[in-house]
Amino acid sequence: MPVKLSAPQAHDLLPVRGVQLGIAKAGIRKPDRKDMLVMKLAEGTRVAGVFTKNRFCAAPVTLCKEHLSQQTEIRALVVNTGNANAGTGESGMQNARTTCAELANLLGCSAAQVLPFSTGVILEPLPMDRLLAGLPGCVANLEEDRWLDAAEAIMTTDIVAKGVSKQVTIGGKAVTITGISKGSGMIHPNMATMLGYIATDAAVSQAMLENIIHHAVNRSFNCITVDGDTSTNDSLILMATAQAGHAEIVSETDADFLTLRDAMTEVATLLAQAIVRDGEGATKFMTIQVEAGKDEEECRKVAYAIAHSPLIKTAFFASDPNLGRILAAIGYAGIDDLDVYKLSLYLGDVLVAEQGGRATSYEEAQGAAVMQASDITVRVVLARGHAQATVWTCDFSYDYVKINADYRS
Amino acid sequence: MPVKLSAPQAHDLLPVRGVQLGIAKAGIRKPDRKDMLVMKLAEGTRVAGVFTKNRFCAAPVTLCKEHLSQQTEIRALVVNTGNANAGTGESGMQNARTTCAELANLLGCSAAQVLPFSTGVILEPLPMDRLLAGLPGCVANLEEDRWLDAAEAIMTTDIVAKGVSKQVTIGGKAVTITGISKGSGMIHPNMATMLGYIATDAAVSQAMLENIIHHAVNRSFNCITVDGDTSTNDSLILMATAQAGHAEIVSETDADFLTLRDAMTEVATLLAQAIVRDGEGATKFMTIQVEAGKDEEECRKVAYAIAHSPLIKTAFFASDPNLGRILAAIGYAGIDDLDVYKLSLYLGDVLVAEQGGRATSYEEAQGAAVMQASDITVRVVLARGHAQATVWTCDFSYDYVKINADYRS
Repeated sequence: MPVKLSAPQAHDLLPVRGVQLGIAKAGIRKPDRKDMLVMKLAEGTRVAGVFTKNRFCAAPVTLCKEHLSQQTEIRALVVNTGNANAGTGESGMQNARTTCAELANLLGCSAAQVLPFSTGVILEPLPMDRLLAGLPGCVANLEEDRWLDAAEAIMTTDIVAKGVSKQVTIGGKAVTITGISKGSGMIHPNMATMLGYIATDAAVSQAMLENIIHHAVNRSFNCITVDGDTSTNDSLILMATAQAGHAEIVSETDADFLTLRDAMTEVATLLAQAIVRDGEGATKFMTIQVEAGKDEEECRKVAYAIAHSPLIKTAFFASDPNLGRILAAIGYAGIDDLDVYKLSLYLGDVLVAEQGGRATSYEEAQGAAVMQASDITVRVVLARGHAQATVWTCDFSYDYVKINADYRS
Repeated sequence: MPVKLSAPQAHDLLPVRGVQLGIAKAGIRKPDRKDMLVMKLAEGTRVAGVFTKNRFCAAPVTLCKEHLSQQTEIRALVVNTGNANAGTGESGMQNARTTCAELANLLGCSAAQVLPFSTGVILEPLPMDRLLAGLPGCVANLEEDRWLDAAEAIMTTDIVAKGVSKQVTIGGKAVTITGISKGSGMIHPNMATMLGYIATDAAVSQAMLENIIHHAVNRSFNCITVDGDTSTNDSLILMATAQAGHAEIVSETDADFLTLRDAMTEVATLLAQAIVRDGEGATKFMTIQVEAGKDEEECRKVAYAIAHSPLIKTAFFASDPNLGRILAAIGYAGIDDLDVYKLSLYLGDVLVAEQGGRATSYEEAQGAAVMQASDITVRVVLARGHAQATVWTCDFSYDYVKINADYRS
């Protein structure tokens, strides 16, 4: 069960002026399941994207990058679940192009104005007949107030739909930000998550939108891991329709730039954390906070060593304060000149280890008490400098194995 | 259950002249369990060791390195299970020193001639009263023909004892090599395994023994992973008693150097593979072979990306040829200029993927058939050069989670 996470209600997800959503049950992999989403964007919408760095990136990822690089205005997104269209070679690329062309045809734009996305099983051909048959249905029910349907249509092994809305005031106008995400396994994003879409009716220049997406992704989707597996299909898309009616944000020094950036980053962070809370088999949500490092990179190394250790993740599943495993992970994280006598380890607020060993004040009952919670913070103070990094992850349970041993059946 | 691995019989493990073994049930962590081992070495024995690179290395590891660097002849080894004496700060160092001093006292040598080893739970103080009380018992039953007892005395979560003997002829004399190892979880050695001890009665110079240990470890213990966690206590020790009666091997060009090196490497490889076959919860033994890379490092990166992926390991547990997960791991292994259209992926002898996608000849039934075996080879041909690397690993099962969630209870 997801850790302190429930699906949003339909009214929690506010419409964004200029963004219409349409969904279909196309039977891509399983019958009677929302598995296709089309997002139609009003004229004048600016779009920015970041994508997986996996060399085996999926055909739709390659095509998204191609279309975004052409500087043509993006007018639609199309997403299918059930099949990742990854590891599909040249025919996979052709299938992604055909999908864009067919949707463009239905919407009256060009294929280069469509961004395609796929998620699901790798190494299997996309069922083009069912996918193309699903497109008219998506277009037929396009509406602005369909974000919850959209969040549901992009789920795979997710248990709950993930969506967040936020409103801020910019130039005296109410600006809405709504985002959805999906992902549960193969989660260790390197540039973005499995799939995340965040739209706003704010007016913001392309350069500032790119600025915001990099700021946001590095503080949200790039700080999570479920299993350490970087997917072939990770994509995060920001869309700004400019329909809120305020003056366009064109510079980092604009008074409203920080308002918009921080609000979008907050939405991205909540969506990223929701993926971890709904991580495959998760029973615990863990915040790994590494402080006082020489640079951010070494803090991230230590945080990810802890977050990826199956021994630590299973101990958290068992609520067992077997904290020596955390010291071991810190030790092999790759900081060659780390002085283990200087660092401190905290579980929640409890000091566990210092001076190379167990803190004299530490008692097992304290660790056991913290371990009972479903949200737990592990804090490592390296005492080498002033940098810090935070990573969010979840535990490893029987259900993790069950879900992944059964996924295709 | 271990994958095609059963414990050796007592007569399978041949005595090595000059090496006596004594064991005790000291109750370090659990009652009525062999948990201490002393190995007494004859005068003139040469010893070489390689150890974990974990910065949080255990006190005994630090002390082993200190004693080996003093060039004093090593006369004894002492091993306890149940407690790793790691993450124990200055008092842990003091406890390791006391252990050496007490054993030296009993054997009539100096503390610097003793190498200490510990394995078990991290971050808990060594129970010195019980450990010291166990030493006289070990010394009282020292015998050359006690290798199986020794293999059993160093087990922790291991299900079966691990030991191998081999005989070769050097200079017309029969030379015996016998080794034991332990380890099952926290296995991703970086210089050595959890614990491995290989003894021979061959006569070999210190320099050649060091040469052999590095050759052997890089082709055996450094090629295995169970969970990607590099332990705080990994140690591999080679001992050569020079009692076989042949002329000493002093150079790589000696006719018999290769005979000894290759035989010891073979013993090391079998002991390392035994650790994987007895990996926590293992049901499958996987050989990951990466070929035609630019250099060995990139081949190892790809092999370990596959070997560490929980998604791949759970799919193998389920005997599910969900092979797209392997492409994903190859893609995120960190080769930035990898051309995914050139590489080929084989499962056993079956070509699965080429030209960026599924091979046209591949049928799911072929993959499913290979997946039924308990020993499976995954072969990746990068088509970029002439280097290769092999890594051995096991799958991830329900029992992996069970063992690690319950380990301390």
